[in-house]
Amino acid sequence: MELACLDLEGVLVPEIWINVAEATGIEELRLTTRDIADYDELMGHRLRVMAEHGITLSQIQEVIAALGPMAGAAAFLDWLRERFQVVILSDTFYQFGMPLMAQLGHPTLLCHNLDVVDDRIVGYRLRQANAKAQCVRAFQLLGLRCIATGDSYNDTAMLTQAEAGILFRPPPNVIAEFPQFPVTVDYDELRAAFLRASTRIPA
Amino acid sequence: MELACLDLEGVLVPEIWINVAEATGIEELRLTTRDIADYDELMGHRLRVMAEHGITLSQIQEVIAALGPMAGAAAFLDWLRERFQVVILSDTFYQFGMPLMAQLGHPTLLCHNLDVVDDRIVGYRLRQANAKAQCVRAFQLLGLRCIATGDSYNDTAMLTQAEAGILFRPPPNVIAEFPQFPVTVDYDELRAAFLRASTRIPA
Repeated sequence: MELACLDLEGVLVPEIWINVAEATGIEELRLTTRDIADYDELMGHRLRVMAEHGITLSQIQEVIAALGPMAGAAAFLDWLRERFQVVILSDTFYQFGMPLMAQLGHPTLLCHNLDVVDDRIVGYRLRQANAKAQCVRAFQLLGLRCIATGDSYNDTAMLTQAEAGILFRPPPNVIAEFPQFPVTVDYDELRAAFLRASTRIPA
Repeated sequence: MELACLDLEGVLVPEIWINVAEATGIEELRLTTRDIADYDELMGHRLRVMAEHGITLSQIQEVIAALGPMAGAAAFLDWLRERFQVVILSDTFYQFGMPLMAQLGHPTLLCHNLDVVDDRIVGYRLRQANAKAQCVRAFQLLGLRCIATGDSYNDTAMLTQAEAGILFRPPPNVIAEFPQFPVTVDYDELRAAFLRASTRIPA
C-alpha cells in the first residue's frame, strides 16, 4: 500500500496566519513559511506580535472555525482515501488544526502543540525537528511507499524524502528552486499526479 | 498529541475468517490468531484450505462487504477521532480491509497485502515482521504517545510496546497471560479506558 502524505495549509485549507492577519488587521501576522523559511524564527515573530497586540487563542480559533476547507478539498481527500492511506503532516498546531479536521472527516493529523495559559499562546512545542521529513522516513522504514504533496518551503524536505513529491500551487521561488517536482494548480491535476506517482494503481 | 492504535477485527469489525467459514461452510477456515498464535502458520493453513476448496477473492470480498462494522463501532471511532489521532494497525489485508474502511469513514489503515492471480489468493506479503509493535515503536520515535487496544494474541506485542494497552473483549487465555492490561467489554468501557490512559485529556 502507498501512503499519501499531505501538507495542510495551502493544500486542503487556507493559510491560517494570513487569515488571522486579515481578521485582526495586524499586518505583521501575514508572514508564512513562504516568506521566512526558518520556522523557529517565524514562530518567534508571531508570538511576539500576538503578545504585543493581546491576541487570544479563542480569537484565532474563531477565525479558523470560519475558514473551512478550500473548495473541493473535502471531495479530493475522500477520493484520495479510497485509493491510498492518508496522513496529514503539518507545521500547524493541534489547537488550530482539529476544528478543520472535523470538517474533513477527521483524517490523521501529525503536527505540533501550543503552550496556552489563560487563553494566551505563550509558547509552542515542535513534535520534533524536521518533522515532516522524519515522518516520511519512519513510514518508509515501516515498508510504506510515500507520495507527498505540499505548497511551500517547509514541505520540500518531505517531498525530497518521499518516493514521489508533488507541488500544489507553489510560489514561483519554490518552483524555481525545486524543478524536480511536478507542479499542480487544482485538485484534478493533483489527482492525476497521484495516479502517475503510484506504482500500484494502473494508469 | 496522543495516538490511538486500534486493532481492526474483534474491535471495530467482526472476525473476517470466522464469517468466511460460516458463509462457505468450510469449518477449517474458522481458526484465527486466537487459536494459532503464529501468524505465518495460520496463513499457510488458510491458503491451503482455500486452494483445496477453490475459494476466490471475490467470494471472500462479498462476505466482507456484507459484514459491516460492529454495532456502535462507527460512533466509537468518531468519538475517538475527535480526541486522539487514530491509526488502525491490523494483520488483515488491504483487499479485505478497504471495503470496511469505507464504512468507517476511511481511517488510516496499516496492514498487509495479498498476492492475487485470476481472483485466486496465491500468497501474501507481510509489510514487516511484528508489524503492529514496530508501528507503535516508529510512532513513539516521532514523539507520539501511543494508547493501543486489541482483543487477541497478535495484539499483545503492540499493547506492550505502547505507553498504555487496553484489551477489548479478549478470550480468557489472553486475560490470564496478560493481567497487566485493563479489560473492556463494550465501547462505553473502552471510551472510559482511553480517557483514563490519556495524560492529556482531563479526567
